[in-house]
Amino acid sequence: MRRVRLIVAYDGTACHGWQFQPGLRTVQGVLQEAIFGALGEEVRVDGASRTDSGVHARGQACAFTTASSVPTDKLPIVLNNELPADVRVAAAGDVGEDFQPRFESVGKHYHYTWFNGEIDDVFSCRYVSRVRGPVDIDAMRAAAVFFEGQHDFACLQNSTAETSVSTVRYLHLVRVGVPGDSLIRIDVLGNAFLYNMVRILSGTLLEIGQGRRTPDTILDALRSGQRVDTGCTAPASGLCLEEVFFSDADLEKKAAVLRD
Amino acid sequence: MRRVRLIVAYDGTACHGWQFQPGLRTVQGVLQEAIFGALGEEVRVDGASRTDSGVHARGQACAFTTASSVPTDKLPIVLNNELPADVRVAAAGDVGEDFQPRFESVGKHYHYTWFNGEIDDVFSCRYVSRVRGPVDIDAMRAAAVFFEGQHDFACLQNSTAETSVSTVRYLHLVRVGVPGDSLIRIDVLGNAFLYNMVRILSGTLLEIGQGRRTPDTILDALRSGQRVDTGCTAPASGLCLEEVFFSDADLEKKAAVLRD
Repeated sequence: MRRVRLIVAYDGTACHGWQFQPGLRTVQGVLQEAIFGALGEEVRVDGASRTDSGVHARGQACAFTTASSVPTDKLPIVLNNELPADVRVAAAGDVGEDFQPRFESVGKHYHYTWFNGEIDDVFSCRYVSRVRGPVDIDAMRAAAVFFEGQHDFACLQNSTAETSVSTVRYLHLVRVGVPGDSLIRIDVLGNAFLYNMVRILSGTLLEIGQGRRTPDTILDALRSGQRVDTGCTAPASGLCLEEVFFSDADLEKKAAVLRD
Repeated sequence: MRRVRLIVAYDGTACHGWQFQPGLRTVQGVLQEAIFGALGEEVRVDGASRTDSGVHARGQACAFTTASSVPTDKLPIVLNNELPADVRVAAAGDVGEDFQPRFESVGKHYHYTWFNGEIDDVFSCRYVSRVRGPVDIDAMRAAAVFFEGQHDFACLQNSTAETSVSTVRYLHLVRVGVPGDSLIRIDVLGNAFLYNMVRILSGTLLEIGQGRRTPDTILDALRSGQRVDTGCTAPASGLCLEEVFFSDADLEKKAAVLRD
């Protein structure tokens, strides 16, 4: 038996999130089915991030244990032959037999994209969340800085879900960029994330951009630790898990690139 | 009564082409339904190009006659409220009451995109057509030039469909570019197009890139006027109607930009 790590991209629009659920189409389920089709093995695929329903990924990391003799470098082609068009294996690599992506990842890069134009773009509307009216990017940038570093992020945790024991996390970087016509992109690089954390952070920054709260309310929310002190949970369609990091060096390199 | 010109973008994936067909979802049908929903009028929307099933558009032009008093500049918002997410009105303008986009257009810009990477990109796979193995871009470029100018393009006309009386057309520009990782894009600017012309042209250029025919076979095909002397009809998913021109100055300006 050997263990393989996969890097997987998916358009989450037609999936009920990452995690396997009987009778529902999920990314984990789709992958497990493709592995069964290609290798004839019923395996469990362990993911680094349990992305929500409708959330996308360009670089989800996951791992499974196999008895198959298919060479690792051929696995992307073999699995992509079985996978539907909205899920693709981008890369495969050998890992130790107790490798667990969720616990061994040292960080993740998510981005959230708001579309602020008047006419939606039919070619990218599945990957953004639209917002009307003026948005003050500078106010969003001023607020984003307050999220960087180590904090108790209890205020950014979905209050209805299972809650984490510790809500202290480290965010290397929170950047607000304007990568193209009418797009507002929030890049977040952190060591680990609470349930819905990036979506609540993005919703809060947007409300600041809309003048519905001021940047310094971030400081109050971090102090209070109350979910009611932050903004709405931004819709899933705008969120993408860009990359999972397994070495501090890779993570720092990415942070440096995004900072430039 | 007044006549309005619309510029429309659509993701053609889920449409049976532009032209209205009873019981099928077509772009023309979807637009006519939205106009009925928004303005309460049963109108006929006349398009500049009858794009095939699965073909996309960023700048289709069309026109309809209306008794509505909704200001022209408000029509995009009013109609987009009724339209499904894969069809958007980008702009609206007033035109003369006998304006017919198909006959008054002086040219169109289409582009065709081949994806030549090993791993499909889940976020753009609906807008490309994939091809495996090495492709010689220089050979495609050498061949593309032969299509430019005025020719009898009978060899690029789908032989099973209704045929045009004259098959002489003028192509201002045929360019092969490499806009991004693993993408091969063919831009075609012409005064008018035969049925399936851009898809056959793109399929023929690809076969040249794959070494299955030489660039100078284009000259033979233009001389013979035989469909059998050109390549396969490229799949619809890679084709996009980028823009329709109603003035020679606009068309020449676009040709100059693409030539740079």
